[in-house]
Amino acid sequence: MRNILLIGAGKSTSHLLKYLLEKAEKEQLHITVGDKDPSNCEKLLKNHPKSTAVKLDIFDEEDRQNAIKKAHLVISMLPARYHIDVAKDCLRFEKNLVTASYVSPEMEQLNNAVKQKGLIFLNEIGVDPGIDHMSAMKVIDSIRDRGGKMILFESFTGGLVAPESDTNLWNYKFTWNPRNVVVAGQGGTAKFIQEGNYKYIPYHKLFRRTEFLEVEGYGKFEGYANRDSLKYRSAYGLENVLTLYRGTIRRIGFSKAWNMFVQLGMTDDTFVLEDSENMTYREFVNSFLPYSPTDSVELKLRHYLKIDQDDNMWEKLVELDLFDPHKKIAIKNATPAQALQKILEDHWLLNNDDKDMIVMYHKFGYELNGEKKQIDSSMVAIGEDKTYTAMSKTVGLPLGIAALKILNKEISATGVVIPILKDIYAPVLNELENHGIKFTEKNIPYMGYNPNNVAG
Amino acid sequence: MRNILLIGAGKSTSHLLKYLLEKAEKEQLHITVGDKDPSNCEKLLKNHPKSTAVKLDIFDEEDRQNAIKKAHLVISMLPARYHIDVAKDCLRFEKNLVTASYVSPEMEQLNNAVKQKGLIFLNEIGVDPGIDHMSAMKVIDSIRDRGGKMILFESFTGGLVAPESDTNLWNYKFTWNPRNVVVAGQGGTAKFIQEGNYKYIPYHKLFRRTEFLEVEGYGKFEGYANRDSLKYRSAYGLENVLTLYRGTIRRIGFSKAWNMFVQLGMTDDTFVLEDSENMTYREFVNSFLPYSPTDSVELKLRHYLKIDQDDNMWEKLVELDLFDPHKKIAIKNATPAQALQKILEDHWLLNNDDKDMIVMYHKFGYELNGEKKQIDSSMVAIGEDKTYTAMSKTVGLPLGIAALKILNKEISATGVVIPILKDIYAPVLNELENHGIKFTEKNIPYMGYNPNNVAG
Repeated sequence: MRNILLIGAGKSTSHLLKYLLEKAEKEQLHITVGDKDPSNCEKLLKNHPKSTAVKLDIFDEEDRQNAIKKAHLVISMLPARYHIDVAKDCLRFEKNLVTASYVSPEMEQLNNAVKQKGLIFLNEIGVDPGIDHMSAMKVIDSIRDRGGKMILFESFTGGLVAPESDTNLWNYKFTWNPRNVVVAGQGGTAKFIQEGNYKYIPYHKLFRRTEFLEVEGYGKFEGYANRDSLKYRSAYGLENVLTLYRGTIRRIGFSKAWNMFVQLGMTDDTFVLEDSENMTYREFVNSFLPYSPTDSVELKLRHYLKIDQDDNMWEKLVELDLFDPHKKIAIKNATPAQALQKILEDHWLLNNDDKDMIVMYHKFGYELNGEKKQIDSSMVAIGEDKTYTAMSKTVGLPLGIAALKILNKEISATGVVIPILKDIYAPVLNELENHGIKFTEKNIPYMGYNPNNVAG
Repeated sequence: MRNILLIGAGKSTSHLLKYLLEKAEKEQLHITVGDKDPSNCEKLLKNHPKSTAVKLDIFDEEDRQNAIKKAHLVISMLPARYHIDVAKDCLRFEKNLVTASYVSPEMEQLNNAVKQKGLIFLNEIGVDPGIDHMSAMKVIDSIRDRGGKMILFESFTGGLVAPESDTNLWNYKFTWNPRNVVVAGQGGTAKFIQEGNYKYIPYHKLFRRTEFLEVEGYGKFEGYANRDSLKYRSAYGLENVLTLYRGTIRRIGFSKAWNMFVQLGMTDDTFVLEDSENMTYREFVNSFLPYSPTDSVELKLRHYLKIDQDDNMWEKLVELDLFDPHKKIAIKNATPAQALQKILEDHWLLNNDDKDMIVMYHKFGYELNGEKKQIDSSMVAIGEDKTYTAMSKTVGLPLGIAALKILNKEISATGVVIPILKDIYAPVLNELENHGIKFTEKNIPYMGYNPNNVAG
């Protein structure tokens, strides 16, 4: 019997647990889920004989270490900043570790020690980061294997609502942490490379500089630039690529409408609104508009943001009850971002039978035998309901698959790693296909920019 | 003989030294100027017999303490963050201290100790902060003395170029630290109160929400909101005021034009441009614009910022050589803000005989005997040349006057204070009038907003 300890039973554990429990009998697994509130996971475990839910306070060192000691492998689904204590214990007790989070500098520092003990701490193996790394590196490696030279890489991912559950003017619902959506793009200028030119987009222009995408069978989407387009340049071996861009996918029109909140200042998370608790939605809006003794909040906003009478941007705001004089923020010491999140959650939370959708789209430009070529690769995953979401599936399955392959020694890499090695991504992507997570690759004419033209 | 130690001989010491040296004989003063480079001040001292220039490294504790020990009073003109070491030594050796800087939290903490020793550490006694405090409190106190109740306070200050030296389309030159101008308004949302309503302006809208002012004989100006409009609310005793706004004065049109830089992202000081050293001005502009293989930087910018063919915003950019394909930023690892500062300094530095101008404008709204009334108070100071600037005069004279009055015990307050007490501001303002720094007060009909109307 191999013990897997899963720490933290959040939103994205439904598919992960389902996968592991289905494998438990055949693979001789026992799954222990530790959470500060074990009732969180009891309904997912459904009294499965190979499972135990335990109360685990990760800030209690003894508690945490006892749990880790008993495991053969640890999966940490904690918020990223709490991984490091778990990781240090895993190192001490010589346990392999799997997470879906970005490698923090502290985690990175453990690399040599982890290697020396022959362990693997596999991070960034969810959907984004995770499936994006694996599906991109698969194509990049295949291009290189054929002697091609990468000249362009663009990569977009989005967590959206599925068409059948798309019931609002924004074509959007929260399928993940709403807070991350509200503050998306903040904290620094977006930086990327287009045809050899470094380009910078400040936050207040980010949602007006979108690119368009089309996914067969799913229609058009748009993408806005991530802050960190250059982050994996060297990890992917793309130091000399002319175009490097990573973005977030939304339905067409979302970003332009979201920009209204940005322009007003409603996404700011750095100061606290006066008396936010008693503030109505209407007062919240008005606090970002010039004072007038006579003009309405509505007209002031239309004028400030230059929204014409027949512009459907307006309907998007009305749909959110933004001008409601009775509904209250009802949060003490709320930042504008927290107040806005509250307003959006009234309308954008998934209903029980709503289906979410993950869309991923990569463009690979390359030169082969003096010819420019392009491959576009895309994947769409649709959720089942509010619990078994596509988000949970695309985050949880790679985690579960990789964990099992580590236990079975089918993955033999050591150190603090991310899934950009063929030894990791190839078997994981193969098994993901069995679960319907499959990329469609198309050879198309090179669509990138024109690198021979110097005007840019 | 009373020894005054002046630490730091920066731009604003010309008038301060002139004032102190003129008083030296009659008041039995000896002025010692300590600077890391004493040649800085030698030409201002002109071998005056009552003066000494010494090399002083303020980071050398022994050096610093020896200098402070010998003084009867210390004036620190160092950058604000360095005052605290000087202040601690002044406390130890029981010397009074005068600065033109904002009271830092560390400085504030010395208050009780300073009081116990019967000393005064008088801060914020330059122009802004300084003359603004004094001229405002004079009117506020007089309104209260007559039984009036303050309902509105707006205060604006600007360092500008005098009309006779105003030679560019921006009607602006640097008369103070250029860096502060480039990053002005950053670091947080502007917050103020209008007719009882809290209002918030994010940075990217700040320069489009200006208010207009007119100063008799000097024409129209505009003001954009400071971040800290509420900072002195309790110090001034304005807790219940309905409107509280502090702003920075520019000539009409400056802010709208400056907003172009903000929108592009050129004022960002939080990241470093790739290869800024070899970047041309044109490339700098282009790095904030979408890539195109064919379109010109000019047209891309016009389109991005919606600048019509006949809009003189365009000429303002051209005047700065912004599209020059040869001029280089020539600074290693420059932030956009540093690059922009370089570009602006090509055109906006004062020539030797250029005159600068300080404009200050306060509005006081109050109720007296059930009637709403308003007093507007304004002051304009014009410099002599690049050395004897209005900035230097309005910063240096209050410092010098207050220092002398402390030595002569005409100011008797103790503790860490700012000049909002009548005992301080009254004698200082009186003497400032003798030097031509004089406020014009006008009783006008109440112009504030309409507090009885609830629509806002």
